[in-house]
Amino acid sequence: MDRSRNRDMASVFGGVEGGGTHSKTVLVSGDGTILAETEGPSTNHWLVGVDRCVETINDMVQRAKVEAGLDPNTPLCSLGMSLSGGEQKDAIEKLIAHMKEQFPSLSQHYFITTDAIGAMATASDRGGVVLISGTGSNCKLVNPDGSQIGCGGWGHMMGDEGSAFWIAHLAVKTVFDARDHLVTPPHDINHVREAMEEYFQVSNLMGMLPHLYRNFQKSHFAGFCKKLAEGAEAGDPLCRYVFTEAGRVLAKHVEAVLPAAQEPLLSSDHSLPILCVGSVWKSWELLKPGFLEVLDKLASCDKFKGRFHGYSLLVLQRSSALGGASLGAQSLGATITMDYAANTNVFYQHTFNDSQRENSGGKYFRAKALGEIPHNI
Amino acid sequence: MDRSRNRDMASVFGGVEGGGTHSKTVLVSGDGTILAETEGPSTNHWLVGVDRCVETINDMVQRAKVEAGLDPNTPLCSLGMSLSGGEQKDAIEKLIAHMKEQFPSLSQHYFITTDAIGAMATASDRGGVVLISGTGSNCKLVNPDGSQIGCGGWGHMMGDEGSAFWIAHLAVKTVFDARDHLVTPPHDINHVREAMEEYFQVSNLMGMLPHLYRNFQKSHFAGFCKKLAEGAEAGDPLCRYVFTEAGRVLAKHVEAVLPAAQEPLLSSDHSLPILCVGSVWKSWELLKPGFLEVLDKLASCDKFKGRFHGYSLLVLQRSSALGGASLGAQSLGATITMDYAANTNVFYQHTFNDSQRENSGGKYFRAKALGEIPHNI
Repeated sequence: MDRSRNRDMASVFGGVEGGGTHSKTVLVSGDGTILAETEGPSTNHWLVGVDRCVETINDMVQRAKVEAGLDPNTPLCSLGMSLSGGEQKDAIEKLIAHMKEQFPSLSQHYFITTDAIGAMATASDRGGVVLISGTGSNCKLVNPDGSQIGCGGWGHMMGDEGSAFWIAHLAVKTVFDARDHLVTPPHDINHVREAMEEYFQVSNLMGMLPHLYRNFQKSHFAGFCKKLAEGAEAGDPLCRYVFTEAGRVLAKHVEAVLPAAQEPLLSSDHSLPILCVGSVWKSWELLKPGFLEVLDKLASCDKFKGRFHGYSLLVLQRSSALGGASLGAQSLGATITMDYAANTNVFYQHTFNDSQRENSGGKYFRAKALGEIPHNI
Repeated sequence: MDRSRNRDMASVFGGVEGGGTHSKTVLVSGDGTILAETEGPSTNHWLVGVDRCVETINDMVQRAKVEAGLDPNTPLCSLGMSLSGGEQKDAIEKLIAHMKEQFPSLSQHYFITTDAIGAMATASDRGGVVLISGTGSNCKLVNPDGSQIGCGGWGHMMGDEGSAFWIAHLAVKTVFDARDHLVTPPHDINHVREAMEEYFQVSNLMGMLPHLYRNFQKSHFAGFCKKLAEGAEAGDPLCRYVFTEAGRVLAKHVEAVLPAAQEPLLSSDHSLPILCVGSVWKSWELLKPGFLEVLDKLASCDKFKGRFHGYSLLVLQRSSALGGASLGAQSLGATITMDYAANTNVFYQHTFNDSQRENSGGKYFRAKALGEIPHNI
């Protein structure tokens, strides 16, 4: 047995970012050095089941150990997992028990948190809002003292508002309702209907049923959102409409959690940091009209007038697997040195102009776009 | 071999009513005599899969043959199936092929139609509107010439508005959104939250996730609707609200199909027959405010003013398996004598008073309730 390898492993921490479509794993040392990174498919146990979730995580971690030149038979110090769907206590305990039993050489200790908290731990230790819009959606406000309040994150049957699934569903539902004469569509449906028929390879609405039931795959259904983004960029009004609606409902998540924010998050020195996670944020320019409208109205309401000075939209420069690893280490009393500034990038900043706003009911504001959103979201 | 039994079978027609929760089978002779009736669980192939659907149908029919004193090894003349989810051509052909292969002694001929058309064939050969609200929902207008136009019937992922599933979902979603501060509930949620915790045996919202995903059973989720009906009858405002909303959206299905109605359906001699199918109609008194509001407004709009004189709500007195059997026989050129008057009952009649309506924008009408809705819906 190679003793040096065992010594190394004593200070190697693993982290997992588990999404509804893709997953990532990172191995990191206590000084923050990334030793290896691997990728894999969905590890949302609600979507793929516990068995596949655990197998995918094991596969990614073991590949990462090999990539880092470590012995795959020696357990990591800890494995901190930031999982979409990682909220329910019973389910988490079941996942960990399953991992320990099935893969005893994977890690000595385990820690599971939600994708939102893992992302926040990658970006900051001072709190803020995490707003996820990937396959699904979720929002968490983390206060400087660590207290949390959430909105959403219940999955496609009970929420996911503003997510890729939700945007795809809204567009498809608009086509169904127009065909049925049940609801008049806000714009012509032809482009969306044709894009839908092409993406799902169907010739009529009836053909959509297997995609919705027998062969339903949330990740594939949500993938239609990308085609809608292309339609919106090409100017189709219904495609633009569904993204504006998504921006609106995502901002409503911020509105829902903001009353729980402690004063430092809203202080005049800092604009509220909103950490934007998930690939729908690549379409920020399409979300923007609805998003700005809701937060501008919020800033001018009685409750927040003069208290809510502005907000910054941030995107991670590194996988939230890193935050997962950091929290996993913390749960053992260990520490990973984090360079938060290097882990994030501000892609949009908005400052409410108090004097103008108070005169005009929030109609005027100064907005500063900080360039395009990076492609590594 | 018993020759008389074989002769008998030559004129025995089978019918199946397949719902999202329960199913029924009837065996009937050409003169309309019911020979046997049996029951079984869901045969919606979208919900239970093709194998279980086919097995359940075979089981019900074979039990019915025995009950009628017929040889279970001799095929029926025809089996006409009125199935929720029986709309897609490919899926229907697959079901029939599966039945022929698996159960060669079940029936000589097969015919599949939707639950809506089977119900209409039980009630009338002159057309009308079928409005289904059971586990799921659907609406079909059948013209006197047999032409059809539909609205809804796409299942819980893309519609089912006004169904038991939809009512249960709306109530649960209202609780989730109120907890999240995402949407302000129209009424206090406490009664619904407590009823939800009791029905689903959970202690918090997180506990609902298995009911929505891993262990999702549409029929069980929809069953919560019955508890909401009890809450509404006891006066809980949120329970009453979800049923009013259901009545509203069910009437919107009628509004969606009505422009396709041929003149005889709207003639002044007859009020429009609306055949109400499914157990949600047991709560007609709760649906009524929303339902009346939408149709009253429709009758006073420019398009229908003076053309839409009134409507009758009918309920079947016999299973729509009978209509399925009748259509199955027709598909072979055979006929089953049907006593349509005995097969239905009018439980509510509404006549728009043209002169008053034209003066008052539809605010006044004469309504005549024909007693309680029977319990044998």
